[in-house]
Amino acid sequence: MSRRRLLGTVGAAGATGLALGAAGGATVYAVGRPEPATALTSLGADSVPFHGAHQAGITTPSHARGHLIAFDLAPGAGRKEAAALLRRWSASARAMMAGEPAGGQAGGHDTGIALDAGPSSLTVTFGFGRTFFDRTDLADRRPTALDPLPAFSSDHLDAARSDGDLWIQIGADDALVAFHALRTLQKDAGTAARVRWQMNGFNRSPGATQHPMTSRNLMGQIDGTGNPKPSEPDFDRRIFVPATPAAGTPDWMAGGSYAVVRRIRMLLDDWERLPLGKQEQVIGRRKSDGAPLTGGTETTEPALDRTGSDGKLVIAANAHARISAPEANGGAAMLRRPFSFHDGIAADGTPDAGLLFVCWQADPLKGFVPVQRKLDRGDALSAFIRHEASGLFAVPGGARQGEYVGQRLLES
Amino acid sequence: MSRRRLLGTVGAAGATGLALGAAGGATVYAVGRPEPATALTSLGADSVPFHGAHQAGITTPSHARGHLIAFDLAPGAGRKEAAALLRRWSASARAMMAGEPAGGQAGGHDTGIALDAGPSSLTVTFGFGRTFFDRTDLADRRPTALDPLPAFSSDHLDAARSDGDLWIQIGADDALVAFHALRTLQKDAGTAARVRWQMNGFNRSPGATQHPMTSRNLMGQIDGTGNPKPSEPDFDRRIFVPATPAAGTPDWMAGGSYAVVRRIRMLLDDWERLPLGKQEQVIGRRKSDGAPLTGGTETTEPALDRTGSDGKLVIAANAHARISAPEANGGAAMLRRPFSFHDGIAADGTPDAGLLFVCWQADPLKGFVPVQRKLDRGDALSAFIRHEASGLFAVPGGARQGEYVGQRLLES
Repeated sequence: MSRRRLLGTVGAAGATGLALGAAGGATVYAVGRPEPATALTSLGADSVPFHGAHQAGITTPSHARGHLIAFDLAPGAGRKEAAALLRRWSASARAMMAGEPAGGQAGGHDTGIALDAGPSSLTVTFGFGRTFFDRTDLADRRPTALDPLPAFSSDHLDAARSDGDLWIQIGADDALVAFHALRTLQKDAGTAARVRWQMNGFNRSPGATQHPMTSRNLMGQIDGTGNPKPSEPDFDRRIFVPATPAAGTPDWMAGGSYAVVRRIRMLLDDWERLPLGKQEQVIGRRKSDGAPLTGGTETTEPALDRTGSDGKLVIAANAHARISAPEANGGAAMLRRPFSFHDGIAADGTPDAGLLFVCWQADPLKGFVPVQRKLDRGDALSAFIRHEASGLFAVPGGARQGEYVGQRLLES
Repeated sequence: MSRRRLLGTVGAAGATGLALGAAGGATVYAVGRPEPATALTSLGADSVPFHGAHQAGITTPSHARGHLIAFDLAPGAGRKEAAALLRRWSASARAMMAGEPAGGQAGGHDTGIALDAGPSSLTVTFGFGRTFFDRTDLADRRPTALDPLPAFSSDHLDAARSDGDLWIQIGADDALVAFHALRTLQKDAGTAARVRWQMNGFNRSPGATQHPMTSRNLMGQIDGTGNPKPSEPDFDRRIFVPATPAAGTPDWMAGGSYAVVRRIRMLLDDWERLPLGKQEQVIGRRKSDGAPLTGGTETTEPALDRTGSDGKLVIAANAHARISAPEANGGAAMLRRPFSFHDGIAADGTPDAGLLFVCWQADPLKGFVPVQRKLDRGDALSAFIRHEASGLFAVPGGARQGEYVGQRLLES
């Protein structure tokens, strides 16, 4: 999509505001940036297509701002109401991702929160939880991959903030664009579904760093180094259900993926008290650049067998990088695409902050589960984190033109 | 500060990471933006000077991300500990605003959360609450402008989230840079002060809109149209204490300002149920472009006396724009520089969202107080908002080279 076309779209949404912006003249500020940012940069102008083989928001680069929200169908709502809801949601998502207002979908007007702004790479991604299928008389189409995750010994899960019939991930590089999408989709739910839980997250803003692939988390650690790359030949096979699903996987999941969502609290006060060298031993990588403790750069393979002059493993037996390495887990691979979260200060005075871990895989039993099982048993990092909520969602393939997300499940 | 110098600074902070970024090659993503944002744009590269006649973060353009945090001095801590704390805080703020790590100030290492990132226009602004002066035996230097704000009939204030001995406003265009500053300053507090309350906020990302001066709030309304402009001749007089303060204002406040902070919850479910036309009557302005209902553009003066063909005022007697207009308040002026906030869903199921209202003025009795008094009596908007927390802080002038913020109060 060309920049010219995008500017046209934005103009349609907030023409008067933009004209004013151009006519209003420069604002002179006494300190700081010499002139205000009046140009719509790629941060605001970029858009992500709604239609496609896969839903957006999976391989889309990390967003500066994100919302996760889960809904339960309202008492009395079934397959028909769910289908109508997914149709409304898809229409709103398509419009907003193109930078258009979403008003009128649910009989109301657009809230206006995103007026003047470009689409800011907004994505909206829809998923179904295990409980959705019973409530819609679709139990025979429920994928076995939605069977409950095993319990892990380190889980401290809050049921009220876990699971849900329906799940939406919203991401954008502008916080008001993301909030606009959140409110619009909540309004669209109408009487068909009610909010079960909702979480807010963030990542670096585009342009704040030159580091291209990975971000830092709130522990200061580079996160995502081991992620599979879309350019790798087996990327699609690992992350997406094939266009012709294998036996045992329902057809409606063609092009889909499974999302595991975990609210992982970081015990930052404890972590930050640890000297840098100890932190690096816990992770098995250098904090400054993410390189393995056995040397090289961020992308160098860790030399897991190497010992130091003291005869001990350089990367400790319980180092996070060792235990989570694909080679230590039978090649298990998932695409981690998390947000950081920070909900202020908890009742106990510690920061209520950490990682909204979201990972994507064609099969949770070959992605999240084996890795987490191993981490659960012996990860040095586990002393500094706490899994507080969990969800597993079947995310169908992208909608074709004229189709809504989930239509192949709900109408065939 | 030139871009070249800034890149140099960033390079010093995260040299290996940046080198890796450059050497790592392009990441190919299947959907969305054709290439990742590997260039440090002005969003990340811009910096705001720490030293100056005024503290930064007052006339600095709105930040994409902000934190407000209040501290109380610890039992037993007095003027000496406060002076040492302000010295530590100033050193950290100066370093971080220049894009340098803040490690070592408090004997610890930098958390690394901001590594790889540019300064992202970070500002850190320090203020003193009324209670600070008794605890430091400085009651004789307390400005009368810190006398408690009057009670307003619409207040629903939570004392635990109001006031405080010390207050810091952090703003940046990158969420991790802002969080890094927050954690650093919390760590710097050591045993001298403990957190009283802390709030997170946001605004548009630079480049997400072409609208130059004002942002939208979570009601979708353009906010800040009536703000005084730094280019106006009486701007400094209204916002800052003069370099030679008038009688009754202590000398240490030279170049300072007073911040009024209010957590204003928006009753968004109620607001969004209101038809667009009714919303516009409540505000007195058009939602699309912020123009007064009497016509023109956002910057056109409202024709407050104009009546329609029905003989009624076009801008209603209780419209927010009428009641908050400077001409309706004896020319009272304050510089509003708010953040939106969104803390998820409250216990009653409604969004815990609204405005972290921050306004700046040379004298609260000529800025916030008269306007709020009038709004409190008859603003149509008051049915849709609730003031939940409040603070008033004396923000001293900027530190000179070699000086720390508040030194003229604490050491003279």
